[in-house]
Amino acid sequence: MRKVILGAGISLDGYLARPDSGIDFLRPPKGYSMSAFFATLDTVVFGRKTFDEAVRRGGGSYQPPVNMPTYVFSQSKPAGESEGVIFTDQTPAAFVDTIRRQPEGKHIFVMGGGELARSFLRDDVVDELYIGVYPVLLGDGIPFFPSGFPQRDFKLVDSRSYEPEGFLELRYARARR
Amino acid sequence: MRKVILGAGISLDGYLARPDSGIDFLRPPKGYSMSAFFATLDTVVFGRKTFDEAVRRGGGSYQPPVNMPTYVFSQSKPAGESEGVIFTDQTPAAFVDTIRRQPEGKHIFVMGGGELARSFLRDDVVDELYIGVYPVLLGDGIPFFPSGFPQRDFKLVDSRSYEPEGFLELRYARARR
Repeated sequence: MRKVILGAGISLDGYLARPDSGIDFLRPPKGYSMSAFFATLDTVVFGRKTFDEAVRRGGGSYQPPVNMPTYVFSQSKPAGESEGVIFTDQTPAAFVDTIRRQPEGKHIFVMGGGELARSFLRDDVVDELYIGVYPVLLGDGIPFFPSGFPQRDFKLVDSRSYEPEGFLELRYARARR
Repeated sequence: MRKVILGAGISLDGYLARPDSGIDFLRPPKGYSMSAFFATLDTVVFGRKTFDEAVRRGGGSYQPPVNMPTYVFSQSKPAGESEGVIFTDQTPAAFVDTIRRQPEGKHIFVMGGGELARSFLRDDVVDELYIGVYPVLLGDGIPFFPSGFPQRDFKLVDSRSYEPEGFLELRYARARR
């Protein structure tokens, strides 16, 4: 089955970005690559704020990190293709249900940000977590897991640390009892 | 040199406890023991709220997890010995300075809670982190790293995962440049 994988690079105190949206602290270690992981995906999902931030960083247009359909969850933008992505106003549960009606596809990567993570966790449609933990306490920022969803249990399925500073790559699978 | 080690068991979304102070989710895996670590310590430090919570859980009196001097940081309680602990109104920096004037001692364990963690990080007197990450997203609770201190860089020095669910024990050392 096509899995929904929620992922992000975060600080040790759980921030996706600094309070001003800065992500300078997200420096993957030398030799670290997500390309094998990206090969398992065919759909990428962003929240609208994260998308706007990506557009801003791209100098006014969206530069896709991977060449695959990208959905952006927004209540304010009209649904449909625009700006190189597909805007949707569905709930996460309805969206995942729609995507899964295409049984041949690969996995779906929810790349953030925190508000989208919360809505996917609230709807309990997250099958896996893919988290990169940078060894820094920022002291403030935009949280990857903002409060406001019910408890969700997971099981650690993989953990790798990378030299020289111990960037930690963690993979968890949802434990549904 | 005597090190200051800040530690806690937390959920994957960074909570020490549930909103009502419940800690039922902190269930160390079978065979997991901190006794070798406790043998490297001779001083334990709590914040006042964490201490009150420990007293409440102890049925009205403090049951020390380890037999060593326990300091409780409080602005409201009179400084000095009382209730089986030593109350102090020093800043973390002054406290650590005082403790370190006893050169023969072992390490100092700051066991929480979040407000105390923040004040120790603010004073930059934390040398190591000892974190146990439980594989659960609580969705809300009392954060171990509440916002409000400057960036602090660390280096991962040890990472172990424990069956069956992947409780993760992480040790970091402060990277001062």
